Amino acid sequence: MSELICGTNLVKAAINESVKLLNLYIYTENKEMISFSKEKGISFQKVDKIFLDKKMSNHQGVIAEIKEFKLYDLKEIINPSKSSLIVMLEGLEDPHNLGAVLRTADAAGVDGIIIPKNRSVKLNSTVAKVSTGAIFSVKTVEVVNFVQTIEKLKAAGYWIVGAEATANSSDYRSIKYDMPTVLVIGSEGKGISRLVSSKCDFLVQIPMRGKVNSLNASVSAGILIYEIKKEQE
Amino acid sequence: MSELICGTNLVKAAINESVKLLNLYIYTENKEMISFSKEKGISFQKVDKIFLDKKMSNHQGVIAEIKEFKLYDLKEIINPSKSSLIVMLEGLEDPHNLGAVLRTADAAGVDGIIIPKNRSVKLNSTVAKVSTGAIFSVKTVEVVNFVQTIEKLKAAGYWIVGAEATANSSDYRSIKYDMPTVLVIGSEGKGISRLVSSKCDFLVQIPMRGKVNSLNASVSAGILIYEIKKEQE
Repeated sequence: MSELICGTNLVKAAINESVKLLNLYIYTENKEMISFSKEKGISFQKVDKIFLDKKMSNHQGVIAEIKEFKLYDLKEIINPSKSSLIVMLEGLEDPHNLGAVLRTADAAGVDGIIIPKNRSVKLNSTVAKVSTGAIFSVKTVEVVNFVQTIEKLKAAGYWIVGAEATANSSDYRSIKYDMPTVLVIGSEGKGISRLVSSKCDFLVQIPMRGKVNSLNASVSAGILIYEIKKEQE
Repeated sequence: MSELICGTNLVKAAINESVKLLNLYIYTENKEMISFSKEKGISFQKVDKIFLDKKMSNHQGVIAEIKEFKLYDLKEIINPSKSSLIVMLEGLEDPHNLGAVLRTADAAGVDGIIIPKNRSVKLNSTVAKVSTGAIFSVKTVEVVNFVQTIEKLKAAGYWIVGAEATANSSDYRSIKYDMPTVLVIGSEGKGISRLVSSKCDFLVQIPMRGKVNSLNASVSAGILIYEIKKEQE
């Protein structure tokens, strides 16, 4: 099975990251994409709108077929130092949230993202689009067992920080993150599981002063990732 | 014209914020909503699923009809102090972004949100849902002219901080926000307009270390809002 991605900026990002395209279909009027592909020496087919419309909606005049969204091994993202940050996402369900976290992870210089193999949204074309290309630059790892993965990361020297609001959680700004850090973010509805929470070295929360009791998952991730990276600089 | 909202948590939030319901339709099996409404003394009609399905999708067994999403006057959110923060959103297009910003604004204790009357997403049922009820607790103001509004806010003692990446923009963490602050966030595609940018007292940017050149609008807003509120504490 292959995957389709679309949109000029996203397909350009794939080409810039040397993603192998099985097929590249460009609308005859998408001059920008045609000249970019020629410049990069990428072969493509000129097609009409109807051809593209049949494959995907909102294609913006270009669709590329790729073999898959590349996944990495855990060992490829382990590199403990005082400025290392890995983000574990325990069961996000919304592709928009995963895409937005990838975008933030790229921007902030995160070493890698870990998602569960089951019960989680996967890398797909919606995630790719929302990530604005970060899906091709951020290293994503799929793991079967989150708890075992945490144990491996701890053994490698990482400290595990869980984002969870409990009576004992610290304000997220009260911790010095000058250590190899793993940030664990829970799912949209249920947060972090009890077992994973029990393995965390620190639990942190973002102060909530109003009526709602949580933030959007990708917004929390953004606030925490940038706070951690700031402390690591 | 009236507006429809749905979902147990959202309708509960509306009732808790004393929003007047023109009609409340509850699925016969939604015991939680039925007992909540009885407890609050709110009249409702028990209906079947087909009735709800015809009105909205993803209703989760309850739909409420409200007159409108309340808007405020500018003067109702002006209250300059060292811990005041107003957020101006110049032309967001995606209701998910507006909803997520409202949710963050509620959580962080923002005094109010200002959106343009034209060329922007409005308060609607999608925004309400994504806001998880913050649409009822955060004061939103619609204005015709952003530049004139900025002049009024400056005259009232506010400092205007624009989120825009330019050669002259400061790192967002380099500013002490211990002043009445207005944060201006631009639209998803185009950012802040030139005229609005020229009226800002400070331009700030979030450092971007990777391949993508911007963050999701609601993620940027979240990072900046929490940074400003932290400095204002």
